[in-house]
Amino acid sequence: MLKPESEPLFKKVALIGVGLIGSSIAHGIKGLNLAERVSVTAQSQRTLDTVINLGLADEATLDQQKAVSDCDLVIICAPMGSYVRIIENIGSKLNLGAIISDVGSVKQSVINDISPHISEDIHLIPAHPVAGTEHSGPNAGFAELFKDRWCIITPPPNTEQLALDKVSQFWSALGANIEIMSPARHDMIMAMTSHLPHLIAYTIVGTASDLEKSLTNEVIKFSAGGFRDFTRIAASDPTMWRDIFLNNREAVLEMLQRFSEDITALQRSIRWGEGDKLFDLFSRTREVRRAVIDAKQEKMYD
Amino acid sequence: MLKPESEPLFKKVALIGVGLIGSSIAHGIKGLNLAERVSVTAQSQRTLDTVINLGLADEATLDQQKAVSDCDLVIICAPMGSYVRIIENIGSKLNLGAIISDVGSVKQSVINDISPHISEDIHLIPAHPVAGTEHSGPNAGFAELFKDRWCIITPPPNTEQLALDKVSQFWSALGANIEIMSPARHDMIMAMTSHLPHLIAYTIVGTASDLEKSLTNEVIKFSAGGFRDFTRIAASDPTMWRDIFLNNREAVLEMLQRFSEDITALQRSIRWGEGDKLFDLFSRTREVRRAVIDAKQEKMYD
Repeated sequence: MLKPESEPLFKKVALIGVGLIGSSIAHGIKGLNLAERVSVTAQSQRTLDTVINLGLADEATLDQQKAVSDCDLVIICAPMGSYVRIIENIGSKLNLGAIISDVGSVKQSVINDISPHISEDIHLIPAHPVAGTEHSGPNAGFAELFKDRWCIITPPPNTEQLALDKVSQFWSALGANIEIMSPARHDMIMAMTSHLPHLIAYTIVGTASDLEKSLTNEVIKFSAGGFRDFTRIAASDPTMWRDIFLNNREAVLEMLQRFSEDITALQRSIRWGEGDKLFDLFSRTREVRRAVIDAKQEKMYD
Repeated sequence: MLKPESEPLFKKVALIGVGLIGSSIAHGIKGLNLAERVSVTAQSQRTLDTVINLGLADEATLDQQKAVSDCDLVIICAPMGSYVRIIENIGSKLNLGAIISDVGSVKQSVINDISPHISEDIHLIPAHPVAGTEHSGPNAGFAELFKDRWCIITPPPNTEQLALDKVSQFWSALGANIEIMSPARHDMIMAMTSHLPHLIAYTIVGTASDLEKSLTNEVIKFSAGGFRDFTRIAASDPTMWRDIFLNNREAVLEMLQRFSEDITALQRSIRWGEGDKLFDLFSRTREVRRAVIDAKQEKMYD
């Protein structure tokens, strides 16, 4: 169990968007006493009603400007494709000295999108909690989502240390392990660990569903041999993932190009029956698995 | 728990090879009274000693011909690359009326490899239990490995029904659900559900390990975002997987070609910022996930 704070870290926190991540943050703020007040804004009254029924907010409004007024922390938890529209709307309404943060899966584009619309007195501290499930929406959230997961914070140059510390403290309180790095480095690592795997999973599931109907049905029936794991990844939120690929274009294309070259080489080895080359690769990849287990990113048996 | 048979199904079963699958079958035969006697043969005395210590065999010998003598069922549980060598050695030593089966992941090539070396009185009934873990070797086996998993049986034309029934009964007793289909159909389905996913997982893990060292380390550290699932798949047994790709060459190359076309199209969509095309695919793949869950190939939450 996570331990509640004795003093709230913030006076008023606004969450712009309450999908899986936003609602999980709200659960955490409420349960762990991280703010005196929480205001939530969303695009539909239905979502706000859900939030109110779950007891996740002191204020729930369709009006983004109203939601952010008097806040010392504003977290954008909406699809990255909506950031520019949001910041154009709220940028001039933020309190002097407020922190604006987000939870997007790409970080350089967030800085590019937001910085032009905020004054120098506002602290931009982008963050990326590396956590999720295959479920989305305000009902999917839970306070423990971030526990023992990474939260990568990517402050732009010349960020004030005090503001950075407060955001780190906030995510630590939610149970996350904090890592601070440059936005460009973050985007390159995520292109390999998350974006490329998702792209591949979406692709192969699409390839399977384009087969002759009876064959697709049998692929589903016998999916336990590996394909099933890809379907779980390929069930992730379409809007979020569209935005990720559009916003991390260069790093994804770079990693995808490397992957394509490597799979073409393997294809050639299969065609020409080069068993030794296959065996060498298949042995080498086992070491990476061991390293993942050693890094405690996975239990040995699960 | 699986229910032991009141009468053994076979007099003497020989297992040629005792890795994960072979040792799991041995556990099952012993625990469920599926044969009066079990003989095991392996390539090293060390493996045989393990088998004896685990109480998995009545006979354990390095001599394959001795192991199969007087058997009414022989199951090859060795890498597919060794089938020809094995059948050349034991083919003429099989009892008249005996059944020879296997557990390989490709089925047409098994028939091509084995049939020329056995007489017409021997029943060739290839089978593929679609089950496994990321662990291998005789110590990794357990009787419940096949429970509620598919076992696909691919009898050649003109197979005697009685022999087919006995093999089906054997796998049912081990807890598997039986499916009977043609070897060609099996190989095409597995190319998509299992072989292509493994090829992709091996490739991406290889691509990641070829990055600059410090970046590879961070990919491992932050592997939870999708990459981790691929490392589990890419930790599978190298010899087994080399043989799968060499033996199911045509079906794998066909599915890989379709996949490559599809990912190239996606690459283009990312480069040109075609968000709608990405969104359409990412929505479509969710339906396949639902179908996998509906087909009870996966629990909703796991």
